[in-house]
Amino acid sequence: MNAPTKIESLEVGYDVPALPGMDEKDIQTPCLILDLDALERNIKKMGDYARDHGMRHRVHGKMHKSVDVAKLQEKLGGAVGVCCQKVSEAEVFARGGIKDVLVSNQVRDPQKIDRLAGLPKLGARTICCVDDIDNVADLSEAAQRHGTEIECLVEIDCGAGRCGVTTTPDVLKIAKAIHAAPGLKFTGIQAYQGAMQHMDSYEDRKAKIDIAVAMVKDAVDGLKAVGLDCDIVGGGGTGSYYFESNSGVYNELQCGSYAFMDADYGRILDKDGKRIDAGEWENSLFLLTSVMSHAKAEKAIVDAGLKAQSVDSGLPVVFGRDDVKYVKCSDEHGVVEDLGGVLKINEKLRLVPGHCDPTCNVHDWYVGVRGGKVETLWPVSARGKAY
Amino acid sequence: MNAPTKIESLEVGYDVPALPGMDEKDIQTPCLILDLDALERNIKKMGDYARDHGMRHRVHGKMHKSVDVAKLQEKLGGAVGVCCQKVSEAEVFARGGIKDVLVSNQVRDPQKIDRLAGLPKLGARTICCVDDIDNVADLSEAAQRHGTEIECLVEIDCGAGRCGVTTTPDVLKIAKAIHAAPGLKFTGIQAYQGAMQHMDSYEDRKAKIDIAVAMVKDAVDGLKAVGLDCDIVGGGGTGSYYFESNSGVYNELQCGSYAFMDADYGRILDKDGKRIDAGEWENSLFLLTSVMSHAKAEKAIVDAGLKAQSVDSGLPVVFGRDDVKYVKCSDEHGVVEDLGGVLKINEKLRLVPGHCDPTCNVHDWYVGVRGGKVETLWPVSARGKAY
Repeated sequence: MNAPTKIESLEVGYDVPALPGMDEKDIQTPCLILDLDALERNIKKMGDYARDHGMRHRVHGKMHKSVDVAKLQEKLGGAVGVCCQKVSEAEVFARGGIKDVLVSNQVRDPQKIDRLAGLPKLGARTICCVDDIDNVADLSEAAQRHGTEIECLVEIDCGAGRCGVTTTPDVLKIAKAIHAAPGLKFTGIQAYQGAMQHMDSYEDRKAKIDIAVAMVKDAVDGLKAVGLDCDIVGGGGTGSYYFESNSGVYNELQCGSYAFMDADYGRILDKDGKRIDAGEWENSLFLLTSVMSHAKAEKAIVDAGLKAQSVDSGLPVVFGRDDVKYVKCSDEHGVVEDLGGVLKINEKLRLVPGHCDPTCNVHDWYVGVRGGKVETLWPVSARGKAY
Repeated sequence: MNAPTKIESLEVGYDVPALPGMDEKDIQTPCLILDLDALERNIKKMGDYARDHGMRHRVHGKMHKSVDVAKLQEKLGGAVGVCCQKVSEAEVFARGGIKDVLVSNQVRDPQKIDRLAGLPKLGARTICCVDDIDNVADLSEAAQRHGTEIECLVEIDCGAGRCGVTTTPDVLKIAKAIHAAPGLKFTGIQAYQGAMQHMDSYEDRKAKIDIAVAMVKDAVDGLKAVGLDCDIVGGGGTGSYYFESNSGVYNELQCGSYAFMDADYGRILDKDGKRIDAGEWENSLFLLTSVMSHAKAEKAIVDAGLKAQSVDSGLPVVFGRDDVKYVKCSDEHGVVEDLGGVLKINEKLRLVPGHCDPTCNVHDWYVGVRGGKVETLWPVSARGKAY
């Protein structure tokens, strides 16, 4: 699951969209490209921020699903490890050499619990979340059977409305059960407020995180009162990390999208009312697409449709162009309004995807480019690892 | 790219969601399952319909991207071959043994044209579409260089608003150029009205196809007048095939979704005002998902989110259940409203995806089930073949 060490036998077009050394203009489309300079700047910037604020940064690997990007985040951004959402993703990261892996999600299926308990044998510290006391005995049994240790965070639903308990008494009850269970270790709290990350207004986001911080602080204090310390109090995303960092309660960030950016995140505003893709973070991920038909004067058809991206959070935006606009997406085609008739057949456009996570998940490769040349090819190592 | 002949070495959970012989209840989720009985009935029914109406059926392989399903459509449904949208998909089908492959799309990039021209060497009749006279010389040059023949259809935009020319004079101009070009053969017309397939009302759909049929008839007559016969006049989808079949103009259908069905197609109405998934076609494709959290009384969290499906055409529907409802989809989670609190942890639900094509494209495997048991495992052979 590592990046291949030898890729010369791969056939461009059939197996891969490009090979190192190629000109950017020869890349087969549609495909994902990474502006390596921008990516490295984003990663370093968030790493510096976390360090300067005394926070650990456990990067969210579910966004990119790439061992190579995760390792770059460790190297340039001082990341302490990754979080991800599925046991199969965790296996990819652990097999790829990541030594500290949090499945920031519930693991309930017996086979998945068994695989989770086997993860430490791959050399990775293994952490998961729990929101139901009935889960504790199953995790404990599996860890004992494998002779391993699973660290557990109690998950608090602090506003996302998905998994997680909502009261401190529930947190305490589960934490005590974890602490008492052989093979398990109580390690802290998972409290990611996912629902507010994409609210445009900084003040609206702050109000939501204030609620989350109060819930988490109450739980941490309650745990302390019964003698349970939290090694990890984790949460924070690209739209909120400054709030968690200054909360005095959280100690681990879990940002993902900052590294790549996307059109939906890009639209949210910072404290000065400026879009976060206009200075805070750079777009480093692009969906490269080509014009394949221009039979109608004001409309160009490009080769990136629903099979090349997810439009759940809106259509992609053509990067660096005000003269043309991506206006419609069907299975295999994108319609680009070209009122001036400026686009030529085979002309390439860089699209900023509406939503990076599910867009990355439909691709096999990241093509890393620098200075107009293909520098590297990274597999989307955990693509499709949903089960 | 064929189904593996040996799959015993695959690890359930990491590599595959199931293995033949397993109980359906042990399948790892989220994953796609196919009800093989329903699938076979759908395939046979459409095959019988086409034969009874004197139509050829070139099944749309872009929907399922599976060599195994295509072969079943040839065997049980008398399909003459496949159409697909990308050269890389066509390569998968040709390498998998499909002998007649239409890329029902424009091919403009020089590398893609080169690969297309190489396809006949894999033993497949090779057809593509053209909507620009400038494309003819490039296709001709590549076919001559490879010593192969590319058959060409002129694509008419008969309402979809994507690729294709819109006037008979344009059709004639391109057809004559194809006919005169060495290495190319003029084979007919591609005229798929994609935009009307999902209109609920039968009469609304008929009105749109009436316009398309008139355009196509005019083009076919015009071609005949200059001595060019159409071996293929192709089009028709799951929401329209009866119109094309009775048009007296079309001779090839290109249906895809009928085999699997989905929630968006299921909602359209037949001539009697009945949903097409209530008798005309059966749901044979399901996204199997498991309950992973139920920390809130009226809300169950399942493990199928945006990484396991495309919600471009709406949310999935829980099959066979009126008591619970899939109400929200985020990256890794689905929220299922469970007002009665009836769902249990690890309980499995069959979801009917909102849109089958881009949902299939995020999975690696179809798990074929019959009578509660896993019977087969088919790769989504052309998954990710977008470039």
